[in-house]
Amino acid sequence: MKLPVSTEWVLHCATTMAQLAPGTTVSAAQLAEYYDLPAPYLAKQLQALVRAGVLAATTGPRGGFRLARPAGEITLLAIVEAVDGASAPYECREIRQRGTGALPQEDCRNACVLARKMADAHDAWRRTLAADTLADIVASLPPSAPARTRSRLPQRR
Amino acid sequence: MKLPVSTEWVLHCATTMAQLAPGTTVSAAQLAEYYDLPAPYLAKQLQALVRAGVLAATTGPRGGFRLARPAGEITLLAIVEAVDGASAPYECREIRQRGTGALPQEDCRNACVLARKMADAHDAWRRTLAADTLADIVASLPPSAPARTRSRLPQRR
Repeated sequence: MKLPVSTEWVLHCATTMAQLAPGTTVSAAQLAEYYDLPAPYLAKQLQALVRAGVLAATTGPRGGFRLARPAGEITLLAIVEAVDGASAPYECREIRQRGTGALPQEDCRNACVLARKMADAHDAWRRTLAADTLADIVASLPPSAPARTRSRLPQRR
Repeated sequence: MKLPVSTEWVLHCATTMAQLAPGTTVSAAQLAEYYDLPAPYLAKQLQALVRAGVLAATTGPRGGFRLARPAGEITLLAIVEAVDGASAPYECREIRQRGTGALPQEDCRNACVLARKMADAHDAWRRTLAADTLADIVASLPPSAPARTRSRLPQRR
């Protein structure tokens, strides 16, 4: 059970964007340099965040990425699921209905108790990540962080 | 973030073993037939459960598998981690210390807040699966389940 390596990238890039002055954008190339990441692959991940409604992309010479919504409305869960999808890690293929031990269909109207427990665990995971927004993350950083981020990451208006 | 398909297999096989009369064993071939699963691959997964201390294997003509501990002492987490490992799905490669935005080392003595949140989510997932044992699962089945399981799965003493 592994999340893509890019999960760390997009969490950090979104946290960085949450520290920029409103209305400014940043390019994939800038973020790639900022974190020493492969720019083309990072750009693909940022596009996935656009499709998920987490980021907005603007085109043109000063185009780039910015948060699509206020930082207080973007949860860590939304960012993680933008690059990894929202499907649960456990797949129930109903083996209880197969083989010589197969249960009759009428005994399988409810989800299998094992599938339910696995779903409960995934729900707990999702709830934890849905409890924090980018605004919460930025608020937990040292007070000097946003000014430092802005000075190190030249922005375009 | 995907668990192996065999996660369903081993959860069901362990639940089945928890319903057998104490002291009886069941072979991988029997369990494979019971759930219509590929026997050689299932056998490998059951061996992983032996290595994890969930199952015990006995050799000889009547050899096979049985629970290594009482069902009340085997959590769903132990079974899942026996086949998937216990490592967390999120990997923090400390990109905050890389690139033009690199934080100085003295600012990185504590784990990154994003890595901590991801670890919190994994902890919540693990706690949920550690809260239920095979005994709890069997107790949630219809009262007729153990007798049915025993009658459909010829056992060896």
